[in-house]
Amino acid sequence: MDDLLARPDRSDFAVFRSVTTRWSDNDVYGHVNNVVHYSWFDTVVNALLIERGLVAVTGESPIFVVAETGCRYFASLAYPQTVEVGLAVARLGGRSITWRLGVFAAGGSEAASAGRFVHVCVDRRSRRPVAIPDDIRTVLERL
Amino acid sequence: MDDLLARPDRSDFAVFRSVTTRWSDNDVYGHVNNVVHYSWFDTVVNALLIERGLVAVTGESPIFVVAETGCRYFASLAYPQTVEVGLAVARLGGRSITWRLGVFAAGGSEAASAGRFVHVCVDRRSRRPVAIPDDIRTVLERL
Amino acid sequence: MDDLLARPDRSDFAVFRSVTTRWSDNDVYGHVNNVVHYSWFDTVVNALLIERGLVAVTGESPIFVVAETGCRYFASLAYPQTVEVGLAVARLGGRSITWRLGVFAAGGSEAASAGRFVHVCVDRRSRRPVAIPDDIRTVLERL
Amino acid sequence: MDDLLARPDRSDFAVFRSVTTRWSDNDVYGHVNNVVHYSWFDTVVNALLIERGLVAVTGESPIFVVAETGCRYFASLAYPQTVEVGLAVARLGGRSITWRLGVFAAGGSEAASAGRFVHVCVDRRSRRPVAIPDDIRTVLERL
Repeated sequence: MDDLLARPDRSDFAVFRSVTTRWSDNDVYGHVNNVVHYSWFDTVVNALLIERGLVAVTGESPIFVVAETGCRYFASLAYPQTVEVGLAVARLGGRSITWRLGVFAAGGSEAASAGRFVHVCVDRRSRRPVAIPDDIRTVLERL
Repeated sequence: MDDLLARPDRSDFAVFRSVTTRWSDNDVYGHVNNVVHYSWFDTVVNALLIERGLVAVTGESPIFVVAETGCRYFASLAYPQTVEVGLAVARLGGRSITWRLGVFAAGGSEAASAGRFVHVCVDRRSRRPVAIPDDIRTVLERL
Repeated sequence: MDDLLARPDRSDFAVFRSVTTRWSDNDVYGHVNNVVHYSWFDTVVNALLIERGLVAVTGESPIFVVAETGCRYFASLAYPQTVEVGLAVARLGGRSITWRLGVFAAGGSEAASAGRFVHVCVDRRSRRPVAIPDDIRTVLERL
Repeated sequence: MDDLLARPDRSDFAVFRSVTTRWSDNDVYGHVNNVVHYSWFDTVVNALLIERGLVAVTGESPIFVVAETGCRYFASLAYPQTVEVGLAVARLGGRSITWRLGVFAAGGSEAASAGRFVHVCVDRRSRRPVAIPDDIRTVLERL
């Protein structure tokens, strides 16, 4: 799956979300720390799912848990800049979604990082994998 | 100084900055955790200082370190909403700045929290308090 | 309540918990960021409540939400050192607990910070204040 | 390199470091969030480098920056438990180190996650890759 970590262009993504950086994003070397990119991935993927009504933080419906993630870093970013994160469904399996992500400086064309984020659909209580419900699948196929 | 933690109105602040919330801001109870408000305070105060050229992350000029902070919580917030943080200089001492902060839901009129944030101007190497340089003071007095 | 932010001694606390620092605790100035102390307060207070069976993260019992916090900083800390956080019940009201906290370098006698942390007992669903249950009160009185 | 994300045993690691979990490590689903594992990786790898004198947070010597990371998740963890992170040098290149990591519940034999963490040795100012200094290489070869 490593091609998902190839350096993306903005044209690889149809959906973008802005994220404001924070003082704590910079580490002692003065740039956004590698871990923070994953926090942004979590943020933009879940916001999309929540805002399109595909997942509810509380309730009985299935939830998505993270099975595997990866990130390759190409250029540094630094607070206080704003970033834009592009996201796309790279693969839609029966029980899993593989997201591709790209982080860009606001307005920038060169990706600062590329991410891969594998979500598995699970029963909220048992945490066992279940099929992605059809209504969710329909929305994801359009992304 | 506890009056600075009285519930503020938007009219108490001339400067606002937007902050996008993150998945990790919500704790297990489903709302933004108390600690996160302080992260926002750090973020908006330092962004203001950096963008107005009052502090450089690297170099030889004095820096501001945090001597005391406080926050009172009035209403809960939750990712994925965006928030706005108002900030004002409440007191400008010879070597210290006391900031007043207020967190609001985007477009909201009721403060979710009120913050107090005391910055001390120190020599970057010795970390000993020094007078706030005149050029910085001039800008801060206008805030 | 500001006396709770006076610089504490180790003798002010009967209970201590160790916390390992993290790379991300240091900010660009090379020391533990002010916000991180609050994360430690949250961590040690809740761990005490959970481990003594006074609060369950899930279920129907009341929970404690944070109404106000404060911290005064006396000395800097830096990853990768380990710290010890002392905690004590400073005031036990009908519906609230005021915790006093002190952060020390492992084995150190001088506090790096002093914290005040006000917990309000609330109904888990309505989030309205309720009386602290007697069994919890009994345990807290012994701390 | 994906074999590095196969589920490891404790016997795959000679060096372990304990990490205390934090309240903020749990997300709304009540378990340690996926991002936090990367924060632990950063923490244990850098602590090892700092404590063995291989990297200085300040100064003129080369530093290690992160070029790529990955993590596969096998079991959930939850605050307030303590975890142990095993670390090993999986590959030592001329200018890069590939670390393998495994997270275990304290005393547990089953890995909760497996990590891959690629460090590139760079000049501190130019951030261009440079050869890993011989003295550092000698220490790393013994790990």
